[in-house]
Amino acid sequence: MIAGDVLTGPLQEIFTTARDKKIPVQKVDRRRLEQLVSNAAHQGVVAFLAAKEYVGIEDILASVRVDEEPFLIILDEISDPHNLGAILRTADAAGAHGVVIPRRRSAPLTPTVAKSSAGAIEYVQVARVTNLPQTIDQLKKRGLWIIGAAPDGAELYWESRLDGPIGVVIGAEGKGLGRLVKERCDNLVHLPMLGQVNSLNASVATAVLAYEVLRQRRKAFIDEGVSCS
Amino acid sequence: MIAGDVLTGPLQEIFTTARDKKIPVQKVDRRRLEQLVSNAAHQGVVAFLAAKEYVGIEDILASVRVDEEPFLIILDEISDPHNLGAILRTADAAGAHGVVIPRRRSAPLTPTVAKSSAGAIEYVQVARVTNLPQTIDQLKKRGLWIIGAAPDGAELYWESRLDGPIGVVIGAEGKGLGRLVKERCDNLVHLPMLGQVNSLNASVATAVLAYEVLRQRRKAFIDEGVSCS
Repeated sequence: MIAGDVLTGPLQEIFTTARDKKIPVQKVDRRRLEQLVSNAAHQGVVAFLAAKEYVGIEDILASVRVDEEPFLIILDEISDPHNLGAILRTADAAGAHGVVIPRRRSAPLTPTVAKSSAGAIEYVQVARVTNLPQTIDQLKKRGLWIIGAAPDGAELYWESRLDGPIGVVIGAEGKGLGRLVKERCDNLVHLPMLGQVNSLNASVATAVLAYEVLRQRRKAFIDEGVSCS
Repeated sequence: MIAGDVLTGPLQEIFTTARDKKIPVQKVDRRRLEQLVSNAAHQGVVAFLAAKEYVGIEDILASVRVDEEPFLIILDEISDPHNLGAILRTADAAGAHGVVIPRRRSAPLTPTVAKSSAGAIEYVQVARVTNLPQTIDQLKKRGLWIIGAAPDGAELYWESRLDGPIGVVIGAEGKGLGRLVKERCDNLVHLPMLGQVNSLNASVATAVLAYEVLRQRRKAFIDEGVSCS
């Protein structure tokens, strides 16, 4: 639905493109749009999508190509929908195969998450599990190396091996990893904190780790072709 | 100011600590608090601080210790206060000496920025400049290598030398670096984008680059002490 009778600029373009692609599109009063989005911010256009469905862990693992190592991002009770959205966006960009969230005490996939994800919610597979520690055990049996981010983690993250089949676990804002989750991690890594505030935003910490996974994987790929003598 | 007559848990603790430290503290009606924060989210307590003051570029450069290389984060029109706050938090954690923002078309240091910064706003020096391209020229004359993040940047960020005196420039959400800013960068780097959404949140991109600066600096520091034979 698009607000306004006479459309100009990007709204006109969206209208024309939608009509050309046979997507039903309707011009409505701006107030109708405000109601639809419960007065949240919008830019004059609202699209209706099928609700995003969760997948199973097996679906995520099945999507890993034979020439790839699995890379999962596991979120232990991230409750802020903006953070979850930003993490989905990062997961998409950094090439993660999927994101795992627990059924309880986690933000679900809401419209706010969708907006913060800048559309990535449509592309990233999200599994919602009943028991996160059990799921981690299951992933370990499937050969994934589980790395948890923790301020008291012994290893500096960039000195840790992150280039194999991997699950990176990020804890809740403020309270970090739950005990049962933390105990199950194969390794705990920390990010250097040089300042006065001793933590990073959860989506920021996820991104730093996800891109280090990517860097090490690319490097391993290049190193394979180089022999040292 | 703390909401409620009878305090329990963390609010009681804050009250007692404040009183012990001779910080004036007052119990007020919850509605008084809502008014004070204009109905923004709060957790039952509001502190009054001196407004955060901007510093000059020279103040930031003067704060660099003799055994350090300057590291500045330069923001080209970041308008989202949550992103600016998250960037200040990252700047603090990653050991940047300061953040530079333009006077126009940038979020100023508002209470929303302060909240998103998780307190880092108190510790990170922020310079607000009238003409960002001119400031970049000035920093280049002072020996800083200016790296801009751009999707069409020729170099992959982790293959770029980031361990000397450096200014990392991040563009506005959606439109990226302005032309005059982009032209002045010594080098443009890109972050790999493996997914369907072709950009990262500005605060996330800043963090990935800031921690790569830190990683390379630490590595350079270690390498200096190691000789290969």
